[in-house]
Amino acid sequence: MARRPLSELTRELTAVCMGREPADTVIRGGRLVNVHTREVLDGVDVAIAHGRVAMVGDVAHTVGSATETIDADDAFLVPGLIDTHLHVESVMVTVTRFAEAVVPHGTTTAFIDNHEMANVFGLEGMRWMLEEGRGLPLKVFLAVPSCVPALPGFEDAGAELGPDEIREALDWEGVAGLGEMMNMPGVIAGDESVHAEIAAALERGKPVTGHWSLAGVRDHRLQAYIAAGVDSCHETTSREDALAKLRSGMWVQFREGSTFRDVEALAAVITEDGVDPRHCLLVTDDVLPDTIESDGHMDRVVRRAIESGIDPLVAIQMATVNGAEYFGMRHDLGSIAPGRLADILFVEDLRDFRPHRVLADGRELGELPPFSYPQEAYRSIRLGRLLGEADLKIPAEGASVRVRAVGVESGRVTTEHLFADLPVVDGAVRASADADVAKLASIERHGGPGTIGLGFVKGLGLRRGAVASTIAHDNHNLLVAGMDDADMLFAVDRLVEAGGGMVAVAGGEVLALVELPIAGLMSDRPVSELAARTIALKEAYAELGSPVENPAMIFSFLSLGVIPALRLTNRGLVDGVSFELVPALA
Amino acid sequence: MARRPLSELTRELTAVCMGREPADTVIRGGRLVNVHTREVLDGVDVAIAHGRVAMVGDVAHTVGSATETIDADDAFLVPGLIDTHLHVESVMVTVTRFAEAVVPHGTTTAFIDNHEMANVFGLEGMRWMLEEGRGLPLKVFLAVPSCVPALPGFEDAGAELGPDEIREALDWEGVAGLGEMMNMPGVIAGDESVHAEIAAALERGKPVTGHWSLAGVRDHRLQAYIAAGVDSCHETTSREDALAKLRSGMWVQFREGSTFRDVEALAAVITEDGVDPRHCLLVTDDVLPDTIESDGHMDRVVRRAIESGIDPLVAIQMATVNGAEYFGMRHDLGSIAPGRLADILFVEDLRDFRPHRVLADGRELGELPPFSYPQEAYRSIRLGRLLGEADLKIPAEGASVRVRAVGVESGRVTTEHLFADLPVVDGAVRASADADVAKLASIERHGGPGTIGLGFVKGLGLRRGAVASTIAHDNHNLLVAGMDDADMLFAVDRLVEAGGGMVAVAGGEVLALVELPIAGLMSDRPVSELAARTIALKEAYAELGSPVENPAMIFSFLSLGVIPALRLTNRGLVDGVSFELVPALA
Repeated sequence: MARRPLSELTRELTAVCMGREPADTVIRGGRLVNVHTREVLDGVDVAIAHGRVAMVGDVAHTVGSATETIDADDAFLVPGLIDTHLHVESVMVTVTRFAEAVVPHGTTTAFIDNHEMANVFGLEGMRWMLEEGRGLPLKVFLAVPSCVPALPGFEDAGAELGPDEIREALDWEGVAGLGEMMNMPGVIAGDESVHAEIAAALERGKPVTGHWSLAGVRDHRLQAYIAAGVDSCHETTSREDALAKLRSGMWVQFREGSTFRDVEALAAVITEDGVDPRHCLLVTDDVLPDTIESDGHMDRVVRRAIESGIDPLVAIQMATVNGAEYFGMRHDLGSIAPGRLADILFVEDLRDFRPHRVLADGRELGELPPFSYPQEAYRSIRLGRLLGEADLKIPAEGASVRVRAVGVESGRVTTEHLFADLPVVDGAVRASADADVAKLASIERHGGPGTIGLGFVKGLGLRRGAVASTIAHDNHNLLVAGMDDADMLFAVDRLVEAGGGMVAVAGGEVLALVELPIAGLMSDRPVSELAARTIALKEAYAELGSPVENPAMIFSFLSLGVIPALRLTNRGLVDGVSFELVPALA
Repeated sequence: MARRPLSELTRELTAVCMGREPADTVIRGGRLVNVHTREVLDGVDVAIAHGRVAMVGDVAHTVGSATETIDADDAFLVPGLIDTHLHVESVMVTVTRFAEAVVPHGTTTAFIDNHEMANVFGLEGMRWMLEEGRGLPLKVFLAVPSCVPALPGFEDAGAELGPDEIREALDWEGVAGLGEMMNMPGVIAGDESVHAEIAAALERGKPVTGHWSLAGVRDHRLQAYIAAGVDSCHETTSREDALAKLRSGMWVQFREGSTFRDVEALAAVITEDGVDPRHCLLVTDDVLPDTIESDGHMDRVVRRAIESGIDPLVAIQMATVNGAEYFGMRHDLGSIAPGRLADILFVEDLRDFRPHRVLADGRELGELPPFSYPQEAYRSIRLGRLLGEADLKIPAEGASVRVRAVGVESGRVTTEHLFADLPVVDGAVRASADADVAKLASIERHGGPGTIGLGFVKGLGLRRGAVASTIAHDNHNLLVAGMDDADMLFAVDRLVEAGGGMVAVAGGEVLALVELPIAGLMSDRPVSELAARTIALKEAYAELGSPVENPAMIFSFLSLGVIPALRLTNRGLVDGVSFELVPALA
């Protein structure tokens, strides 16, 4: 079911408006939330044909014998919600399963930055997701990741995207822009390759989406980043930073993810500073399966904005027309008006914003078309050989030794560069439950050099067993931590067997396993199932001693070399401040 | 001097922000009108390089030995004004002369619908104007005229633009959209050729600009027009119509031309209805040279909006960022922010909005580059033969006869379908000063069939002599009216001699002549000179008896078959209601 562009349907829609052809569906008696004028208009009817709104107003003449009538029963009619920045991989499911879960919550358009898939399968992986998205009632657009690998020279991901690959992807239908530009130093230093990527997007009239995560930095460096053409940002955590970005012409994406929740803090730019909200957007960025199960998706973010004091009509604009305008798609998206795709939510109460009925392309959500990822997608764990205890051994002399440890804390994405004294037994450093230090290994798993980085992590709370994951930002190598080498190897084997995922083991037994066989990142099971399995995994972490709130997420960030202060990749420990490799033994 | 795109300048601008390269110019101590947030920010500095804003804020580190410093002296800094719909031909000058006149009034970007030039020289004429525009500090974009000829089958213009020509022009750099879609009946009837033109623009992501001139018609017909993809309109004269269009997703262009002045009436949608003004724009459409001379250009429209009660910051948004967003050009236009073209107005008083200094591309207006239209452009009056009195003769029998007359009235663009009794002398119908009826002839002048349409006009007020014009909407044939055939022929000869223009004659003498040798529409003389000459022409009309306020404009509309009720083209009298040719003798 290909979605036909407006350019192919203008005559058909005109014919419906003029009564020459019947509408497919008419909605009677709604309260239209008009995001163009920021008004509610009562007693409105809508005629729908070919998946688009043909007209709004008196639609009696468009009703034919086969026209379906929906009585809105005075519900508010709200345009489908648009999420302009999210990683579907964070939900750990395919795009189809994502659509199945979020469309009932009113998210009808997703601009997916598929950074994770691209780190594993490069353009090939993007193509699969784009193809999968084409058949769905969810409008799927991709932003081509700008930083793959995230930290060249310090890690081996499954792919490298340079300006050539980015130009290629930007020309694909459905690729809407350049993905979050995380290489802030490269942009402001004038790095040629980084600017070539930006230029590729600008030349095509597609936005360059940003990631200015330097909280409080609002001076000439931010101006340089914006002068380079980057014009949105979802990494904004304070009112002052939001104001500075908006004033400089950026579109600020107020984020309400599972872990990072900025909407309340940023709402003040609208409620207190009173800025024109046209360039304010609502996004999810990263949500976990159980957040969707328990709280919803973009409807949750709209509710949060309203709870934070933003006028409901403004909050709805931030999730609809503003996003459509950011991406230059006003003819298709963002409002209930002639010509636009008929993505329409029925909502009883604008303040407690919960759609009870959702039309996407003018239809209720039905069975989604099956999509099969190619066999290759299921074969992403390519270690090349069986690992043994020798692979995890960190040799040392004496009875104890000082080591570096990646310091983590619940709810924080930055890490600390710590030191710890660990016992040496039989010529090898041992983890120590008393010191809350586990051994950590990052095993290259993309069929590349097969190297293994070794180090330690402090603060994870494990007292026994091991945990492992093939979600390990941003290189997504196989990351394993444990108190015991045998359990670490057992965990690795289980993930190899599962084709990827997350696991917690102890004493040669699996406590919990989340199978993510597609790219080692995603499952083709329903979001509800992933929610249950990730909760079980969290419980298993707790059973192993970890008190961390979102342990699997914290764990998956241990490889994220672009953020300070210390990380482990398959090449070893990366000092994320000085950007050099440092040895495990201090 | 080609303007380089942002994609080629991101590294350069970044280097200025970071202090690696000096700014070309810095502005110190301005009061920035921030159109993103709708605020005024005091004490702001701006660094400019390569014709663009590099940064806003503390710019001390960008100053080098060659950097020019401008002290803003607490003036408001306002983004350059954008006119999203205008006909430069109405000013009767070349694009260069237009730029010379309007840039000092703050108009730094013009979206020109060059409908008139296209009716004379087709794509070739557009190409000349586009080429001319490329060298100017005024940012010149064209909208490719959608209705050339305006009334196929009822007139012979100098060119025909169909879907193929429109596709070709839409691919040219600098062509920003499809020009005003005047063929409302064709759109709502589903005419294939009209919809093919619209589709061509939509496929290229370029807007289809509208012209819904059916005042009061806000029902399913308007919805059909919008469902076809037309998403702006400058033909809106009432608050109710503006509201209906905005609610349906159209961008409404509040027009303040010389003759048609709608801003005051439309302001109420903002000041009374309180709609979100993001889709409201200010435009001039048609202004005459003397309006620019006496009142300015887009600054005049902004003042009018403010006088009508619109908040000055909103009025400025309507003439800046809103227009940039309508045409998808936010990276280049519409605000004073990093990366944007440095089009900056200095204004003392936001309420009495009069720029006292204007930077375009970061520079003061200097000498404009010479541009020569090709010789062909000066040879647009191609009658093919000398005309004689026989060509103007309307034979009749008896002493008097009843004729049809195009009824005109001062300040109104519609005409009436009138009848009058005229004397017959020597077998030919005569004009009558007592009945206020002049003879009217439309002479094909594009080197085409050479046909001449004959009829009468009532209400022009001529008591003697003749007037003629090669501006005759929309076919721009040579239109002549007079009380005396000899004077009519004399007027025609004078325009042939001048290569086009407007003339008033009596008794074999020229009373006033406005030479418009380029396409018979435009002059390469300054706007001030055109202002003086058109005023002299108006005085000459008055001398001949015409009390009409803008007689030359009213006269030039006598051929405009698309508007009711009766017009004269080179094929004869056109009934603009039934759309048929009707005879001169009733």
